[in-house]
Amino acid sequence: MSDAKLFVLSGPSGVGKGTIVSEILKEDPDLRLSVSATTRSPRKGETHGVSYYFMTDGEFRAEIEKGGFLEYADVHGHFYGTPKAPVLAELARGRDVLLEIDVQGAMQVKKSYPDGIFIFILPPSLAELRKRIENRGTESREDIELRLGKAVAEMSYLRHYEYFVVNEDLNQAVEDVRAVMRSEHSRIRDAEKILKKIEEES
Amino acid sequence: MSDAKLFVLSGPSGVGKGTIVSEILKEDPDLRLSVSATTRSPRKGETHGVSYYFMTDGEFRAEIEKGGFLEYADVHGHFYGTPKAPVLAELARGRDVLLEIDVQGAMQVKKSYPDGIFIFILPPSLAELRKRIENRGTESREDIELRLGKAVAEMSYLRHYEYFVVNEDLNQAVEDVRAVMRSEHSRIRDAEKILKKIEEES
Repeated sequence: MSDAKLFVLSGPSGVGKGTIVSEILKEDPDLRLSVSATTRSPRKGETHGVSYYFMTDGEFRAEIEKGGFLEYADVHGHFYGTPKAPVLAELARGRDVLLEIDVQGAMQVKKSYPDGIFIFILPPSLAELRKRIENRGTESREDIELRLGKAVAEMSYLRHYEYFVVNEDLNQAVEDVRAVMRSEHSRIRDAEKILKKIEEES
Repeated sequence: MSDAKLFVLSGPSGVGKGTIVSEILKEDPDLRLSVSATTRSPRKGETHGVSYYFMTDGEFRAEIEKGGFLEYADVHGHFYGTPKAPVLAELARGRDVLLEIDVQGAMQVKKSYPDGIFIFILPPSLAELRKRIENRGTESREDIELRLGKAVAEMSYLRHYEYFVVNEDLNQAVEDVRAVMRSEHSRIRDAEKILKKIEEES
């Protein structure tokens, strides 16, 4: 009945996106996580096709030319991107795909794949986000201010998303995202198609 | 964070709406079921304000004049309707309201309360719906055909709804409706309002 969907998850750093994503993947073995491509060198323990698709600069540029990315960016001289083909292949197989990506990337995906469902993870408050970033204890005061400023700037993209989930309690946030994913399969986009299926089945 | 919502549930007779509704109410004690008003006489065991709000013909007509109904209809000489005030009061208290109603009523509610969320319960197939109606064993062949014809006519309203749920497995259907209800509280309708709340909280 329900066609597979691409779910795009964004949110400021420190909000706990990664934890939410791994919890969701744990609970739904049919869901596929989109793997990024990059031209940077593999680090210890990273596996091609799992951590990243590792590509040469030439390969990456050729793929850009072919329109092979849902989105890509040049970050400090290395390319990062979301290859289109594996995502479309999973969707064609009827499997939902989850893509965790920053707002700039998400805005590109919105253009290259408008049928995606865009979910924004928010902190309960800016004060709480500051606390979470500070509690990591790895950053200087300047870095923390920089990160918070970036978070506020990213959050201003909220209006381009369809859903928001506040990560106050992790379990609740995971259930919120799962409810969005489930309910999107109940959304009526083509009533005629649904009715035809019910009339034909016997 | 999330404002209360009115969920409107429709579907052809025999599809199992009533069972779905009672399961949902069982699992969510905060959810309120909308109670209808009627001018017909109370039957044995029916309680005013629980089964129905029982009204005189004059009272009902006066309420119609005041725009006091989300929808109403004259059925075989008796009025039936959904009083607006109790629904709005529950919503104002932050409680979601569930309204089970036929497609004609739902189309009226769509006009009187456009912020409602409209969910259509479907049978897995027309053949299965026929089986369910036949298995009740209380109806003549003509009645069954009449009921099926009505079901097909009602299902043609599907395109006016936002969500569909196929009642093949009851538990799955209940979870589908619950996911829709939960996810609607994650829908971004006013991004500025959401961001303001996060900035103000501390």
